[in-house]
Amino acid sequence: MSEQPDRDPSATPAFVLVRPQMGENIGAAARAMLNFGLEHMRVVAPRDGWPSQPAVAMASGAGRVLDNALLSDELAESIGDCSYVFATTARTRDLTKPVFSPEAAMALAAEKIAAGGRVAVLFGPERAGLENEDIARASAIISVPVNPEFPSLNLAQCVLLTGYEWMRASGSVAHEQAGLAGTSPAPVIEIERLAEHYEERLEAAGFFFPEHKSRSMRVNLRNMWSRMPLTRADVQMLHGVLRQLLRDRTRDG
Amino acid sequence: MSEQPDRDPSATPAFVLVRPQMGENIGAAARAMLNFGLEHMRVVAPRDGWPSQPAVAMASGAGRVLDNALLSDELAESIGDCSYVFATTARTRDLTKPVFSPEAAMALAAEKIAAGGRVAVLFGPERAGLENEDIARASAIISVPVNPEFPSLNLAQCVLLTGYEWMRASGSVAHEQAGLAGTSPAPVIEIERLAEHYEERLEAAGFFFPEHKSRSMRVNLRNMWSRMPLTRADVQMLHGVLRQLLRDRTRDG
Repeated sequence: MSEQPDRDPSATPAFVLVRPQMGENIGAAARAMLNFGLEHMRVVAPRDGWPSQPAVAMASGAGRVLDNALLSDELAESIGDCSYVFATTARTRDLTKPVFSPEAAMALAAEKIAAGGRVAVLFGPERAGLENEDIARASAIISVPVNPEFPSLNLAQCVLLTGYEWMRASGSVAHEQAGLAGTSPAPVIEIERLAEHYEERLEAAGFFFPEHKSRSMRVNLRNMWSRMPLTRADVQMLHGVLRQLLRDRTRDG
Repeated sequence: MSEQPDRDPSATPAFVLVRPQMGENIGAAARAMLNFGLEHMRVVAPRDGWPSQPAVAMASGAGRVLDNALLSDELAESIGDCSYVFATTARTRDLTKPVFSPEAAMALAAEKIAAGGRVAVLFGPERAGLENEDIARASAIISVPVNPEFPSLNLAQCVLLTGYEWMRASGSVAHEQAGLAGTSPAPVIEIERLAEHYEERLEAAGFFFPEHKSRSMRVNLRNMWSRMPLTRADVQMLHGVLRQLLRDRTRDG
């Protein structure tokens, strides 16, 4: 899409699909990438040729990831410009390599990129995964933690989880709890007035009975109000609830 | 599978698919769950009926998640036993609720469960997502961070990312006990009855006025109750408050 701002492809890791089989999975991987702002795909020796109509059809809104993908015949060629390469694997391998969780790997990728490095993440073919010869070209391994009794992540899911961790690591995400839409937490003085309002009206209604329990009942009620994460809007609504119940009483009385 | 060790279903969050449409997506969600050791699925009003052959076909090795899934007609019924409910949403809503990242949400879920709570996570139908009436029943919102220019996560992907964060969170849980002296978090069914009790009485008292605001007033009130960390004792007290105010009215009238 020509309207898109020019993005420096080296500012994000390249996701490299090594000998992918089904075009649909390539398209799904493109979608998964774009969900997390990743547009830099490379494809090595796709089984069914390139460009791939099934890939384009599946990618739909993420078509530009495919349009801009770099095609290579050989893995070595595809990652020739990269200074740090991760290989994703499901099983543990006998290769002596650092093994990272997706989170730690993408944190490291962000560091490498910030320091001017160029980073690639390799994803193997759907069934077999990467071969040891592929992994031997990588600097480190990413192992996705899954239930050992049911490790069934497919290609696009593996891309999705890694992309998700990239987005988290690259800091474009608010990790923290967001606010309360359109209103703010009630200040203590407002909670105080609310508690007094209820206490007065309940006193008049004979709520604090029997007498010897009256004090603990007041404390419990007061304690509840102050323990609740009430917003200013909540406080107004709760005043309104009480007022309306009593207005109705007056009308009836 | 009878060889499976007995697992306490309350030791993990229940993933609740609300009005899911395609059986295939239910099956894919089951697979995504089992990847991260989650077996406790609930299904509310699946569009195409239950059991679902397309779901079973897609789930393949994760069939037992479907076999053990709890089916309900209504969301309120499905989460009646839960003390803390997350709603997953793509868009920001106007509802006043805490919003958590998947990571923070699953860390909180692990804490709640360690403290004896029962946790549910709601996932909406494929296209539209959860409705505000559904979200109003939740304690908090989970917002998955995605590229705002391309937020295209499907149901199974949303389940996958949340399950992934569950696996990460449950590995390293601080078993902190919330300070709820002598009482326990109110299950959703009790919050539901409390909300209904207030809604009925306020309806009779003419609270929901003017008419064109009535619906949003009801949602706001419902939303407030479910957002509050009410204990069972709180709920009893709040029933008592309402009853006493109305008893007083009767006596005067």
